[in-house]
Amino acid sequence: MAASTLRLATEHRCFGGTVAYYRHDSEVCGGEMRFSVFLPPQAKAGKVPVLYYLSGLTCTEETFQIKAGAHRLAAELGLMLVVPDTSPRDTGIPNENADWEVGTAAGFYLDATQAPWAPRFRMFSYVTRELPELVGRSFPARMDREGIFGHSMGGHGALVCALRQPGRYRSVSAFAPISAPLRCPWGQKAFRTYLGADVDAGKAWDATELVRSGARLPPLLVDQGTSDKFLVEQLKPELLREACEQSGQPLTLRFQDGYDHGYYFVSTFMEDHLRHHAAALTA
Amino acid sequence: MAASTLRLATEHRCFGGTVAYYRHDSEVCGGEMRFSVFLPPQAKAGKVPVLYYLSGLTCTEETFQIKAGAHRLAAELGLMLVVPDTSPRDTGIPNENADWEVGTAAGFYLDATQAPWAPRFRMFSYVTRELPELVGRSFPARMDREGIFGHSMGGHGALVCALRQPGRYRSVSAFAPISAPLRCPWGQKAFRTYLGADVDAGKAWDATELVRSGARLPPLLVDQGTSDKFLVEQLKPELLREACEQSGQPLTLRFQDGYDHGYYFVSTFMEDHLRHHAAALTA
Repeated sequence: MAASTLRLATEHRCFGGTVAYYRHDSEVCGGEMRFSVFLPPQAKAGKVPVLYYLSGLTCTEETFQIKAGAHRLAAELGLMLVVPDTSPRDTGIPNENADWEVGTAAGFYLDATQAPWAPRFRMFSYVTRELPELVGRSFPARMDREGIFGHSMGGHGALVCALRQPGRYRSVSAFAPISAPLRCPWGQKAFRTYLGADVDAGKAWDATELVRSGARLPPLLVDQGTSDKFLVEQLKPELLREACEQSGQPLTLRFQDGYDHGYYFVSTFMEDHLRHHAAALTA
Repeated sequence: MAASTLRLATEHRCFGGTVAYYRHDSEVCGGEMRFSVFLPPQAKAGKVPVLYYLSGLTCTEETFQIKAGAHRLAAELGLMLVVPDTSPRDTGIPNENADWEVGTAAGFYLDATQAPWAPRFRMFSYVTRELPELVGRSFPARMDREGIFGHSMGGHGALVCALRQPGRYRSVSAFAPISAPLRCPWGQKAFRTYLGADVDAGKAWDATELVRSGARLPPLLVDQGTSDKFLVEQLKPELLREACEQSGQPLTLRFQDGYDHGYYFVSTFMEDHLRHHAAALTA
């Protein structure tokens, strides 16, 4: 397949910059993929750092741009925000839309090895290789200044993308991430579906296991609402904290009193996360 | 019907305050109505000013809370934000959902006089009387400090609510309002549907006509994107400006280069509008 050509779907002026939605034929995922970009005003004058945001289950490339309230500060700080969709769509895989926890909008930012998912559900390679190459070719991006963050499934995705590529991202953070997928129902189902029954295969895609095995991140910021209904069964940040403590990985884990799992929570702490990334990306 | 009892649908911590969604049996509209409220942190300690936001065609009481990016600054300024739905729903009126320009989500913030709409589509009385009474009874609201703003159909609604009640609202503003409904297709269709063919009846609900006839507002702030696809045919802010100039009504009308009609535009200028209201409401 030839190098991707970007197809602009819509474009909107926003805080002096631009929010735009793109589609392209992905070589890695074997079909159309979608993503959105916020270009800050500074991108008119030169290259700007790139901050990737990975979204959670059921979300699209639009969710963050609509709900996160990030544009004001990203415009001030001069950060480009790149938001991929949460999976390939309309792949023709049977029942791809039947379960909100696997398949469409539940790509888990890993490379599937199991049929029928393996040829299409390769979100790790997409997010860490094909999408950045496309961004670097298409936008005024400083590709030596990349950061990554995300929410829930995407918070975990951000951790794993960074843990599997030491030194790649200058800054990492997460909102209410799935912290230990091998030890929660969402992760167990997704890993069984995409990676098969071999637990050792899963360890290479589990943030807590990767930290435990010695992988390192830049100093990590994690916010977690105490009224998040998924906290105890699915998210388990205490397991990530334990692994970080044992391994000497710097972690700032903040429990935010009364906040739930949604974007009212994410938007409240967006400023702290953007400043965390800007400190590393624009220094 | 007894005084409305509020039914809390959902509640979310947000910027130290709370976004909550309510339903209640409306006497004025003869059935269930919905609205949302942002309570700033200051409401825990005492009464706060109330700023009403009226949304545009197709929107619900959720649109603003999700997309407008208003909570951060409203929390800082200590403003309560009250957002009604854009019409009654599920009224049983034939074809209420058939046309996005009239009926459901297109109440136009007026009191209908025509069958079959008249008993239910009474958004003016709802927004200016029943909803404020309910807010005053149910929340720590300073009912002597009310402001009102809105977007598109709701921008016009805000103007008309204020123009018909001189001295009621301390502050008024609008994003891309329908400025002269009697002279645009959206307004002509809605007025014909709700008010009948009598143009004089419509003049009492047309912001430009009300200004022309001598009604007054607090100094008015209006933002309008130059790339708004509805600008020329539907919005016509130049007619409002002309009426304001002739009548001596203070108006700051700002054309924002390259912005469209959506919430990427609204959110960009939200801060200016909230500060405009806070200057009058918290002085």
